[in-house]
Amino acid sequence: MLKEGDWVLIRYEEKRYLRRLDPSGSLNVRKDVLKFKDLIGKPEGVKVGKFEVFRPTLEDIILLGFSRKTQIVYPKDAFYIAFKLGIDKGSRVLEFGTGSGALCAVLSSLAGEVYTYEVVEEFYELAKGNLSKFGMGENVRFHLGDFAEAELPEEFFDAVFVDVKDPVPYLQKVHRVLKTGGVVGFLLPTANQVSRLLENLRDMFGGEEVLEILIRYYKTVPERLRPEDTMVGHTAYLTFCRKLRS
Amino acid sequence: MLKEGDWVLIRYEEKRYLRRLDPSGSLNVRKDVLKFKDLIGKPEGVKVGKFEVFRPTLEDIILLGFSRKTQIVYPKDAFYIAFKLGIDKGSRVLEFGTGSGALCAVLSSLAGEVYTYEVVEEFYELAKGNLSKFGMGENVRFHLGDFAEAELPEEFFDAVFVDVKDPVPYLQKVHRVLKTGGVVGFLLPTANQVSRLLENLRDMFGGEEVLEILIRYYKTVPERLRPEDTMVGHTAYLTFCRKLRS
Amino acid sequence: MLKEGDWVLIRYEEKRYLRRLDPSGSLNVRKDVLKFKDLIGKPEGVKVGKFEVFRPTLEDIILLGFSRKTQIVYPKDAFYIAFKLGIDKGSRVLEFGTGSGALCAVLSSLAGEVYTYEVVEEFYELAKGNLSKFGMGENVRFHLGDFAEAELPEEFFDAVFVDVKDPVPYLQKVHRVLKTGGVVGFLLPTANQVSRLLENLRDMFGGEEVLEILIRYYKTVPERLRPEDTMVGHTAYLTFCRKLRS
Amino acid sequence: MLKEGDWVLIRYEEKRYLRRLDPSGSLNVRKDVLKFKDLIGKPEGVKVGKFEVFRPTLEDIILLGFSRKTQIVYPKDAFYIAFKLGIDKGSRVLEFGTGSGALCAVLSSLAGEVYTYEVVEEFYELAKGNLSKFGMGENVRFHLGDFAEAELPEEFFDAVFVDVKDPVPYLQKVHRVLKTGGVVGFLLPTANQVSRLLENLRDMFGGEEVLEILIRYYKTVPERLRPEDTMVGHTAYLTFCRKLRS
Repeated sequence: MLKEGDWVLIRYEEKRYLRRLDPSGSLNVRKDVLKFKDLIGKPEGVKVGKFEVFRPTLEDIILLGFSRKTQIVYPKDAFYIAFKLGIDKGSRVLEFGTGSGALCAVLSSLAGEVYTYEVVEEFYELAKGNLSKFGMGENVRFHLGDFAEAELPEEFFDAVFVDVKDPVPYLQKVHRVLKTGGVVGFLLPTANQVSRLLENLRDMFGGEEVLEILIRYYKTVPERLRPEDTMVGHTAYLTFCRKLRS
Repeated sequence: MLKEGDWVLIRYEEKRYLRRLDPSGSLNVRKDVLKFKDLIGKPEGVKVGKFEVFRPTLEDIILLGFSRKTQIVYPKDAFYIAFKLGIDKGSRVLEFGTGSGALCAVLSSLAGEVYTYEVVEEFYELAKGNLSKFGMGENVRFHLGDFAEAELPEEFFDAVFVDVKDPVPYLQKVHRVLKTGGVVGFLLPTANQVSRLLENLRDMFGGEEVLEILIRYYKTVPERLRPEDTMVGHTAYLTFCRKLRS
Repeated sequence: MLKEGDWVLIRYEEKRYLRRLDPSGSLNVRKDVLKFKDLIGKPEGVKVGKFEVFRPTLEDIILLGFSRKTQIVYPKDAFYIAFKLGIDKGSRVLEFGTGSGALCAVLSSLAGEVYTYEVVEEFYELAKGNLSKFGMGENVRFHLGDFAEAELPEEFFDAVFVDVKDPVPYLQKVHRVLKTGGVVGFLLPTANQVSRLLENLRDMFGGEEVLEILIRYYKTVPERLRPEDTMVGHTAYLTFCRKLRS
Repeated sequence: MLKEGDWVLIRYEEKRYLRRLDPSGSLNVRKDVLKFKDLIGKPEGVKVGKFEVFRPTLEDIILLGFSRKTQIVYPKDAFYIAFKLGIDKGSRVLEFGTGSGALCAVLSSLAGEVYTYEVVEEFYELAKGNLSKFGMGENVRFHLGDFAEAELPEEFFDAVFVDVKDPVPYLQKVHRVLKTGGVVGFLLPTANQVSRLLENLRDMFGGEEVLEILIRYYKTVPERLRPEDTMVGHTAYLTFCRKLRS
């Protein structure tokens, strides 16, 4: 049952809102009003007039609830990354930089433990805040600082994800802290960055894959099924490879 | 360390092989030979000549290791589905039909418990075999038979995924066994099927989304970065919605 | 040389403007001013500060110069259509409805003669105005009225293009006025319309093709090459077929 | 009416054949036979059993009739290029290298005169043969040799298209022979080539655009409308710009 303080996703036709259930609160869309006190004690999935009220999924939280001061890792990419890293509840995962914490939230939902590093204090605070606001991140160790300076044992991580402008200076250290055979992923917006990365992977990492994920949404009118007029044309190129034994 | 009986992914330039480590076995590619007895006791990530040897990821297992007698749910779709369903280790999930078990394997890696139904005995045996062959599926209850005839309590599942030719006759029962607010997803290859589904969701389910996922792979030559010449043009349309309280 | 009254395309970084050279006119972008009297007598291709001045291409005219009261046929689609119709300077082509005249302009540039029909007087005037404003359309016969009521000889056209909401009621007449073997194309936004059309083509038309064209633009910064963040996700499905001899 | 020696496109369900009408010839598909002597004197568009017989379009000729020893410029790209170059019956166009002649055929259908250069004698002969075999190319001047060595007046061409591995060494000469404001296009398969080109355009050329064209074909079964399983994932990046006055 929905109770005071719960986060809810409210849909009204094509619109979506993420709100916290404050009994004095309400949502106004066009001429309709949804009073939050009427939701408390109701099950999620309740429909009140044109309003549909659900508990938010992880995707809803990231897209609508996370404060952003950087480009976030989109759920379409984050979900794919999380699986490609081959992690499960027994895995210890490294990611840097933390950014707004979107990928961190996804990794945290799959892995046993996540280590994350961020050099910009503002982003470090933001990501911590984003996860704690939605009750996530108990298994995340947030670090303020450059991964390059972290003191970590060899072969400490099962998988690594790198989301920094220039990953090349970090490759040797990533190689050292990753278990042999472990997967490392990279998120890079430009083709030039991907080329430069691939040039520098040789010998240390193998099994390279470079790909991009495009999602095409459709209007959901059954008698007029057609893709949306505009779509996200690019978020980033994803590169995956695996540590070779030197 | 790799040991006898382990599954390994072997990469040789662009080629990939999934093999079980039988000490008397070997892999021949072009003029090169990899003897499996030389791998036993080595860490994964070892490179022997042009051969790179890793433990397989879930994606490797599904794409290279699962026997197929039906169109499988591709990992690109399965990973996205698993997250959209909003499940975790505490969730009980329903899926039907089982098919070759690809989605079942992905759901099983995320959820607490998976119930799966398949009417064709050949597929039922195939899926069971695919999961057990790779040590997966302990939390999966395989059922031979039509979900329509299953006896299940109301509001029993946290999420449902439907992969049958015509989901419409199942909608009322899906609605009954799903918790209010729970996500239900559908995989349908044709636009006509999606239209028909959307027409029939009304009132029972809300928050509809229809989408397709396209993955574009790149050749990994750094000085000649470019997409692959051909790509998968279509697997299926994915539809997601959530149970409304009737 | 550019002269008074000429249309010019002006580029200023990523921005584009289509303007007529009125000697008293000017263009202000940010803090920069381009005075049109300074352009007169200059060759096209002149660069004045950050302003680049060219004669517009047909694509520039359609995208920036045509007034629209309907969804236009995008140049990416129009160029492909024009070639698929297999027309040249010796061809007589039919299209309806005229809409804003974008496809009409493209067909007119390739064909000998274009007949176009439009039932809405406002669009009929708009399209005529759009073409004449840019000195095009001498070989176009604009008709106000429904093609269904036009009196035309049998086998009169080499090719036909149909851009109406429901083409099915027109198929028999299209078949009658088109030369045997001639190509007919259709522009339809929804999958449902395409299904309905395909059902009704049988016997009269053969060699069906259905396709959609996606254009992905890149940012043109050489050291940061990457696709644009957003792209046009859908304009329409294009269907082509050819008249069979009944 | 079809006559001896005519080229025809023959469709049989999803298959397509381009054949010349030799009265003694025939086409066998599965258990069906089409005798060419039965077609002579018939109009195009005739249907004989499951065979549909049409005159080929330019696209049919390029895709099915042109011999290839190089990667051809696909019609989807060629049609778009031809329009972007802004040419008409009054235009003189340059292209190099000729390759198999696919773009040359398309340009020749739109422009007044086409100059084409090819350094490989085998390709030069091939392209000439491809066009003449289908009665095209009267307005094309084929040259065996490097465009870099051609003696041509300044501002001689209205538009230029460049399809060579490294266009950079040719840019100054292209600039010299192109009219101010004229469009120049480039076809390049890799992102690295595009970056390098863009770096070198500066000052000489303006109004840059980089794009790629994706075509998605659908199966034409009305009750099962869906995209084809596989699609062409990449042909080339297209770059367009216009000559600035130096």
